[in-house]
Amino acid sequence: MISKNQIKFLHSLLLKKNRLKHQKVILEGQRLIEESMRAGANIEYLCLTENFKNKISSNNLLNQIESYKISNSDLKKVTDTKVSQGIIALVNTKKYHKMNFDSIQNNNFVVLDGIQDPGNMGTILRTCIWFGIDSIILTSNCCDPFNLKCIRSGVGAHFYFKNIIIAKSNLVYDYLIEKKYDILVADLNGNNISNYNKKNNWALILGSEPHGISDTFKNLFKITIPKIGKIESLNVSVAAGIILNEIIDK
Amino acid sequence: MISKNQIKFLHSLLLKKNRLKHQKVILEGQRLIEESMRAGANIEYLCLTENFKNKISSNNLLNQIESYKISNSDLKKVTDTKVSQGIIALVNTKKYHKMNFDSIQNNNFVVLDGIQDPGNMGTILRTCIWFGIDSIILTSNCCDPFNLKCIRSGVGAHFYFKNIIIAKSNLVYDYLIEKKYDILVADLNGNNISNYNKKNNWALILGSEPHGISDTFKNLFKITIPKIGKIESLNVSVAAGIILNEIIDK
Repeated sequence: MISKNQIKFLHSLLLKKNRLKHQKVILEGQRLIEESMRAGANIEYLCLTENFKNKISSNNLLNQIESYKISNSDLKKVTDTKVSQGIIALVNTKKYHKMNFDSIQNNNFVVLDGIQDPGNMGTILRTCIWFGIDSIILTSNCCDPFNLKCIRSGVGAHFYFKNIIIAKSNLVYDYLIEKKYDILVADLNGNNISNYNKKNNWALILGSEPHGISDTFKNLFKITIPKIGKIESLNVSVAAGIILNEIIDK
Repeated sequence: MISKNQIKFLHSLLLKKNRLKHQKVILEGQRLIEESMRAGANIEYLCLTENFKNKISSNNLLNQIESYKISNSDLKKVTDTKVSQGIIALVNTKKYHKMNFDSIQNNNFVVLDGIQDPGNMGTILRTCIWFGIDSIILTSNCCDPFNLKCIRSGVGAHFYFKNIIIAKSNLVYDYLIEKKYDILVADLNGNNISNYNKKNNWALILGSEPHGISDTFKNLFKITIPKIGKIESLNVSVAAGIILNEIIDK
């Protein structure tokens, strides 16, 4: 059985400051945990309800990991969902918290500029991994990528990343210029993305839906997805998918 | 001031059966209401808090519509969000509830097959309108398109549609075959979507993330977005955006 102290610790991870301090996070639900295991997530232990434990088969992947029993009421305390499946995992996220750009090593990558919606961020992480992009930079005013909602919508994508870098936007700007990246800023008024011809490695910059691109990136090369219909804008994670599909080397 | 009976009526619209019975729905928040007005939504009246009313300028679009004052506590009763902006609108959705296919008139369209997640559905509706697709068919096991969460993520897209048709999947199947549509079923194992050459009008069928395509549509022509990285699947609304961008006549 999991101890009261451990429950207290797991509960503390609902707050961003504690996730950052301990560099640990909770994953919830079988599909997410299994996909994260396949991605190589460093899982410290599982907590399972009695009911869930009885349901998993003996050859299940989950049996390879140390596990504790947890009561339904304790499980509710440490997660933010109303209906739980009966399984959580504690994951060490230390290797993903990088603060400098050295590890990118001239690869194509995505920059999220002030994206606050964790559902959109998680969906973009998932799309990046689908297209083989495993480095991302988040400007300091983005939401926490290890927010539970962001992890849920990432469906394990987080743990495929080589680099999740959080940095101030002016430092990102300097890096992109210094390394001579093709900079592509997604915008409603820009050049048709289908006409982009790759000269160097590219960095795709996506702003938030309510606020758009920040001043730091405003005067860079803008690209757009041509609109046919009448609505004002696309969801940012949909726009990310369409643009990546256009610019990826297939 | 809005009456107690009206509050009671608005509150009842939180349930799908009442939305269907009265063919009315509540929109919440200034951006959504303004975008819906631009789309031609039939707004019956607005309810504004004192605080919100004092903030809007005299030449605002919103002043063209009949409005009632509402207290903060009554406003909380009739919506499902925790923090309200202080404005809601009652919209008549009668013209969008169509049950037969006559009105499609040989246009390209999208079919959602059992999509239950209202956030994904709303995002797909928004993407359809961006690409000029204004007819959609939802199989009967989809979530309600006028669910509040679906409306929020649609950001007004609903009201640009000519046809939002709810129908049984076998009737949809018969219609597609009879009208000789190019049927494109999005699937993880299919033909590369970039190789699709339009012969007739097309219908794009998208299944739900957890359950995939239903048996009715399983043996039709499958298309896929080639995967480069390692994650199992894309979010369905991202996949919809990528495929529509590939098959739309630009």
